[in-house]
Amino acid sequence: MTERVILAYSGGLDTSVAIPYLAEKTGAEVIAVAVDVGQGGEDMEAIRKRALACGAIEAELVDAKEEFAADYCLPAVRANALYMDRYPLVSALSRPLIVKHLVAAAAKHGGTIVSHGCTGKGNDQVRFEVGIGALAPQLKVIAPARDYAWTRDRAIEYAEAKGLPIDVSHRSPYSVDQNLFGRAVETGFLEDIWNGPIEDIYSYTHNPAVARDADEVIITFDQGVPVAIDGETVTPLQAITELNRRAGAQGVGRIDMVEDRLVGIKSREIYEAPGAIALITAHQELENVTVERDVARFKRSVDQRWGELVYDGLWYSPLRQSLDAFIAETQKHVSGEIRMTLHGGRAVVTGRRSESSLYNFDLATYDEGDKFDQSLARGFVELWGLPSRLAAHRDAGK
Amino acid sequence: MTERVILAYSGGLDTSVAIPYLAEKTGAEVIAVAVDVGQGGEDMEAIRKRALACGAIEAELVDAKEEFAADYCLPAVRANALYMDRYPLVSALSRPLIVKHLVAAAAKHGGTIVSHGCTGKGNDQVRFEVGIGALAPQLKVIAPARDYAWTRDRAIEYAEAKGLPIDVSHRSPYSVDQNLFGRAVETGFLEDIWNGPIEDIYSYTHNPAVARDADEVIITFDQGVPVAIDGETVTPLQAITELNRRAGAQGVGRIDMVEDRLVGIKSREIYEAPGAIALITAHQELENVTVERDVARFKRSVDQRWGELVYDGLWYSPLRQSLDAFIAETQKHVSGEIRMTLHGGRAVVTGRRSESSLYNFDLATYDEGDKFDQSLARGFVELWGLPSRLAAHRDAGK
Amino acid sequence: MTERVILAYSGGLDTSVAIPYLAEKTGAEVIAVAVDVGQGGEDMEAIRKRALACGAIEAELVDAKEEFAADYCLPAVRANALYMDRYPLVSALSRPLIVKHLVAAAAKHGGTIVSHGCTGKGNDQVRFEVGIGALAPQLKVIAPARDYAWTRDRAIEYAEAKGLPIDVSHRSPYSVDQNLFGRAVETGFLEDIWNGPIEDIYSYTHNPAVARDADEVIITFDQGVPVAIDGETVTPLQAITELNRRAGAQGVGRIDMVEDRLVGIKSREIYEAPGAIALITAHQELENVTVERDVARFKRSVDQRWGELVYDGLWYSPLRQSLDAFIAETQKHVSGEIRMTLHGGRAVVTGRRSESSLYNFDLATYDEGDKFDQSLARGFVELWGLPSRLAAHRDAGK
Amino acid sequence: MTERVILAYSGGLDTSVAIPYLAEKTGAEVIAVAVDVGQGGEDMEAIRKRALACGAIEAELVDAKEEFAADYCLPAVRANALYMDRYPLVSALSRPLIVKHLVAAAAKHGGTIVSHGCTGKGNDQVRFEVGIGALAPQLKVIAPARDYAWTRDRAIEYAEAKGLPIDVSHRSPYSVDQNLFGRAVETGFLEDIWNGPIEDIYSYTHNPAVARDADEVIITFDQGVPVAIDGETVTPLQAITELNRRAGAQGVGRIDMVEDRLVGIKSREIYEAPGAIALITAHQELENVTVERDVARFKRSVDQRWGELVYDGLWYSPLRQSLDAFIAETQKHVSGEIRMTLHGGRAVVTGRRSESSLYNFDLATYDEGDKFDQSLARGFVELWGLPSRLAAHRDAGK
Repeated sequence: MTERVILAYSGGLDTSVAIPYLAEKTGAEVIAVAVDVGQGGEDMEAIRKRALACGAIEAELVDAKEEFAADYCLPAVRANALYMDRYPLVSALSRPLIVKHLVAAAAKHGGTIVSHGCTGKGNDQVRFEVGIGALAPQLKVIAPARDYAWTRDRAIEYAEAKGLPIDVSHRSPYSVDQNLFGRAVETGFLEDIWNGPIEDIYSYTHNPAVARDADEVIITFDQGVPVAIDGETVTPLQAITELNRRAGAQGVGRIDMVEDRLVGIKSREIYEAPGAIALITAHQELENVTVERDVARFKRSVDQRWGELVYDGLWYSPLRQSLDAFIAETQKHVSGEIRMTLHGGRAVVTGRRSESSLYNFDLATYDEGDKFDQSLARGFVELWGLPSRLAAHRDAGK
Repeated sequence: MTERVILAYSGGLDTSVAIPYLAEKTGAEVIAVAVDVGQGGEDMEAIRKRALACGAIEAELVDAKEEFAADYCLPAVRANALYMDRYPLVSALSRPLIVKHLVAAAAKHGGTIVSHGCTGKGNDQVRFEVGIGALAPQLKVIAPARDYAWTRDRAIEYAEAKGLPIDVSHRSPYSVDQNLFGRAVETGFLEDIWNGPIEDIYSYTHNPAVARDADEVIITFDQGVPVAIDGETVTPLQAITELNRRAGAQGVGRIDMVEDRLVGIKSREIYEAPGAIALITAHQELENVTVERDVARFKRSVDQRWGELVYDGLWYSPLRQSLDAFIAETQKHVSGEIRMTLHGGRAVVTGRRSESSLYNFDLATYDEGDKFDQSLARGFVELWGLPSRLAAHRDAGK
Repeated sequence: MTERVILAYSGGLDTSVAIPYLAEKTGAEVIAVAVDVGQGGEDMEAIRKRALACGAIEAELVDAKEEFAADYCLPAVRANALYMDRYPLVSALSRPLIVKHLVAAAAKHGGTIVSHGCTGKGNDQVRFEVGIGALAPQLKVIAPARDYAWTRDRAIEYAEAKGLPIDVSHRSPYSVDQNLFGRAVETGFLEDIWNGPIEDIYSYTHNPAVARDADEVIITFDQGVPVAIDGETVTPLQAITELNRRAGAQGVGRIDMVEDRLVGIKSREIYEAPGAIALITAHQELENVTVERDVARFKRSVDQRWGELVYDGLWYSPLRQSLDAFIAETQKHVSGEIRMTLHGGRAVVTGRRSESSLYNFDLATYDEGDKFDQSLARGFVELWGLPSRLAAHRDAGK
Repeated sequence: MTERVILAYSGGLDTSVAIPYLAEKTGAEVIAVAVDVGQGGEDMEAIRKRALACGAIEAELVDAKEEFAADYCLPAVRANALYMDRYPLVSALSRPLIVKHLVAAAAKHGGTIVSHGCTGKGNDQVRFEVGIGALAPQLKVIAPARDYAWTRDRAIEYAEAKGLPIDVSHRSPYSVDQNLFGRAVETGFLEDIWNGPIEDIYSYTHNPAVARDADEVIITFDQGVPVAIDGETVTPLQAITELNRRAGAQGVGRIDMVEDRLVGIKSREIYEAPGAIALITAHQELENVTVERDVARFKRSVDQRWGELVYDGLWYSPLRQSLDAFIAETQKHVSGEIRMTLHGGRAVVTGRRSESSLYNFDLATYDEGDKFDQSLARGFVELWGLPSRLAAHRDAGK
């Protein structure tokens, strides 16, 4: 029986060309799988037809938007996941989900090979292949860009030679990966890290420098999950989509950074993630109100590790599961409302309200009704400082 | 011989009243020490005279601004010190310095008691007293607000009864602590954490929502320390002052948060720290460019611990010194230039340039000149994911 | 109605004297509660009678041994809990359980005050009072030794004056706290930390230096919990008791250390915990076999924090619960058998066997059947070392 | 000019055969470099002659024992470096030193290739190659066992065919790596992890189960470094050698564990490290006496990271340097004497004495002279437990 390759298909030049090329190189039949994680752009049906036109024996569309929002993006919000304190893991979150659907397609169609379009110097190859190795280690993987040293120019040549139905005439200077949680842009002139980004590269956000009216939004969380916006119940997908729209309209969520890739190099990245940044900002402040101090301090190290792990392609690792168990326990009381102002590129919390608040007005107030017993402080201060005092005394004595 | 009390003197109602009251309660002579950490406001000489008029036998002014900037604020920048990821430790940094000068004054004047104006439910009492315990454990400490249950109303009564030269007529609704690194504001109506701040409470920053032209600034760092602004050499004090001015004019550095106090309660705090936020933002990005990945990841936990420790009043602890030794080693190559746009409440890095950059264009570029050997990736990915793969295989098999 | 005091009663001098004294000082009725956590020694019924003879209006015995073993000691094993890498938290584990029963007794008997026998310089007062504060914050707490500056000499005098039925004639030079998880001893001559312990102070362990035959034991774990010894099913209580006996007979589990108390001082402590040390040693090695590397590395920091937290009296803190959620997830596959030799003070693992092992003979062997693909290593090594190489190149270039 | 290969030469079969084989495969001249890190065994001069007899154009001996002890082993002691809480990094410490001398030899002799005998599934290849990449990235590396799929059988065949002067008749069943800090043994029958080790495999340690008299030793440290044994001044090399002898005679330092290799697999390892274990045990307890609590707690995470990093081949990484800066600061007061009993496989601390001790008898004693003010405790306990109490109250209320 002929082998079958399951190809992660985007509809773009590289993966379109890969269809006949993989067939040629491996003698296998190619099945294209396009997973919709909210990347928008082209009509999915058009993408499906193109795959067939390029020679795929089958082309599947998977609408994974709800699943992506609920099971991949929201855990990141609960982990306040910002790689290097900045990047909300946009692409890193979608890869394990795409992997899941590729593996399912392989099982369904009898595929023995999986193929993806990533290069050999990025993080995404790791995310794809570690994920496949965890879910279906028996599958072989081919990454044409890396394994066949495939370049864009070779792809264009090949497409023209084969008469593939792909428009190669106008070439975008930008390399983009986007989904409903955000958008990543790389482009030649930004590889000089002294160059600033230009307005043209943004798509999810309006220019924050343009004067406009502020927008105020109230987000309701239940156990760390956004469940309503301005009082209207929302699904996870709706929460992200709606905040992308409203925060994006105010220029919130642009990120420009030099980042440490897993493969050992530093790269310069531009991201836009208006909804992600708004949600994480709100979630952090609700944690400030509802999470006990020692938990909050330890959770920072858990959150950091969670972000690194997912960035590093280890979504399907047992450590991610164990960290999630910790996080789930911490979120039991992260319920309540956060009011934010979205304006001028900033998402600023102005109010918080929670039935499980640990903020205690009677203890905090300096006005009438103060119930904090200040006489306790002296003993506390003395013993709190005792180790430092003994050490300072020792150090001075030498 | 009569005992002497060294009083940390601000010139305000509480510490002015404390002068005769401490004398009365302890039978000691009171020496007022006012430490200038850039709090601005009243003329220091007027403050000195008021202390004497209130009955201090001596009143000292200490200009500690340069020292504060260089030895307290800049280490915080090198540690990217943001308590709870937000608060740049404004008051927490000034306390140990004031302590140092109180202890010096006690040595000079034969003081045996130190007194400060903090209450028993805040962090500052801890910072004062742990510091004094470390530097001069033989000194007794009196905090009238806490130890004599002294309130503002009692203070006013007492001032009027004694005819002290203090204007008690117009009482600010705000309780403020400020220095050159920032400003903290508390006030009754913000103790309801659903209430948003009003424009009136800010002083270091203009309203970010008002339309104005952006400001672009280039900050030069040498080993983690800002040494020039727009090419002009600056001292640490000048760097902070200048960025307070320019970032403050753009509304940068406003913070509104619920925070975990050391004494075990949550409180609501408003801060303004335009220069601090601009400097830390720039410093973080320069670290992204010049610090190796494993160092950067571990340094996050060091930075977090540094911030907690200083917030918790443990500046004079051996752990702070050991963390600083780690940080100093990491900063050896944190040299170069960061270009930022200050606008609309945001300090946004747009360019970075460093002779000790670890960003390597030849490895990072996707254009011509790419020197990254992609064939290495396959083996890396396989072994990187091997533990996860083995665990997934085991888990599935059960 | 007369107030009621719930007294944590041990049967010893201090808490016996506390019965009439508390009644005298507070005007309340005293209810003595003796919780059996496996401390052995005197008959519990004799203890109960003594409480009544000293004036308690009621005396309750609680057999909490099974509960202590299952719900307090075994979580410590799963956390490999060794404070300062040495001390298996013996007393720190029993306090929260005793607190739980005191609070239950207060609810049952209408108690409004709880009393315990701890001094003001140890850890146990914290463990009692933080626990009570968490479970029943409305209860007042009296610690006579601390709050009434009660000393042993005063207690003896008082007992004689009141004719209490307590034998005060032979006074042990040792201050001991023991339960089924171990035993702690303090005594005057060991307060000189240069002095070594003498054989006389030990009770749970025989002298490891005496020649005797070794003992071999096989412990079976299921999800991190010991469930069989040498093939015989055991309850948690039986597992600890049996290993106390067998490991104790071989001198396993003696600990002599200088330790950091929560109240800020260092103290010198002698512990014996034969069963605890044997169980933790076995459990650690079973984790080495069954827990994935990244999980194992992160779990070390979780385990350390767990031990510190429980040592520091924070059993009833939300962080302990969150850490336990992490640990529970990591233990899902910690099942299998460990063979140990108990001999000469050492518990040494000699074999491990597990159906959920991650040790893979085919990958590990250097003999025939080796399935590890060594060609993958080169790429791995290159990219693994790339950040160090770039940094070394940069550093050298300057 | 003919290329030159610098070969890390042990004198054993594999690297001896590598000499002519490398010459044959690469056309290069081979220079053998044997680095003495205290591995003992054969006479170094005999090793040198064998290299020449096998065809090396030059053979260098480097006596690196003092350097190894002082600059590699003692930093590990200061870091209490025990990978997975057990393994004192024996081989991991020697590799970077050997690398340093290989790189020096390459510079001296104009070598362009470096070769080592490691396989592709162990850690040592990583340590060699990451080290070389950091110190001399321009050098190529060849690992015949890995890169030419060279096996022991092929090596024997080749040696016989070429008539190399190597005795291949009696083949040890053990694969051993040893140096002055310890010894690692792997062998086929131990690849079944249920099998226990047999006495025959040990060489640095006597059987701890044999009855013999105990040995008592006093180790003096200065800033974390052992400087005297029983009052006699020692160099680092002497300290390790002497303790290897005395602790080894008592069976101290045997380790049998399943360990996580960097390349992603678990392996079973037997180690002997009598001196290392004795030194680390003593050092840890001296830290307990002289290091302040918060430093000690944080240092555990630094120590763990140090051990992982060095195990993982990253000696020449900037993070190791930064961690060492932290550690150096913590060791300033780690000076004093530790008395230990070596016996029956155990190194047990029985006394500690230090002029920079933080143990304060007056605060610790329960006898006369107690200076601890117990009245301070109540306030401390209240505020220490306040966050837990508030959280418990909140949780109960729901």
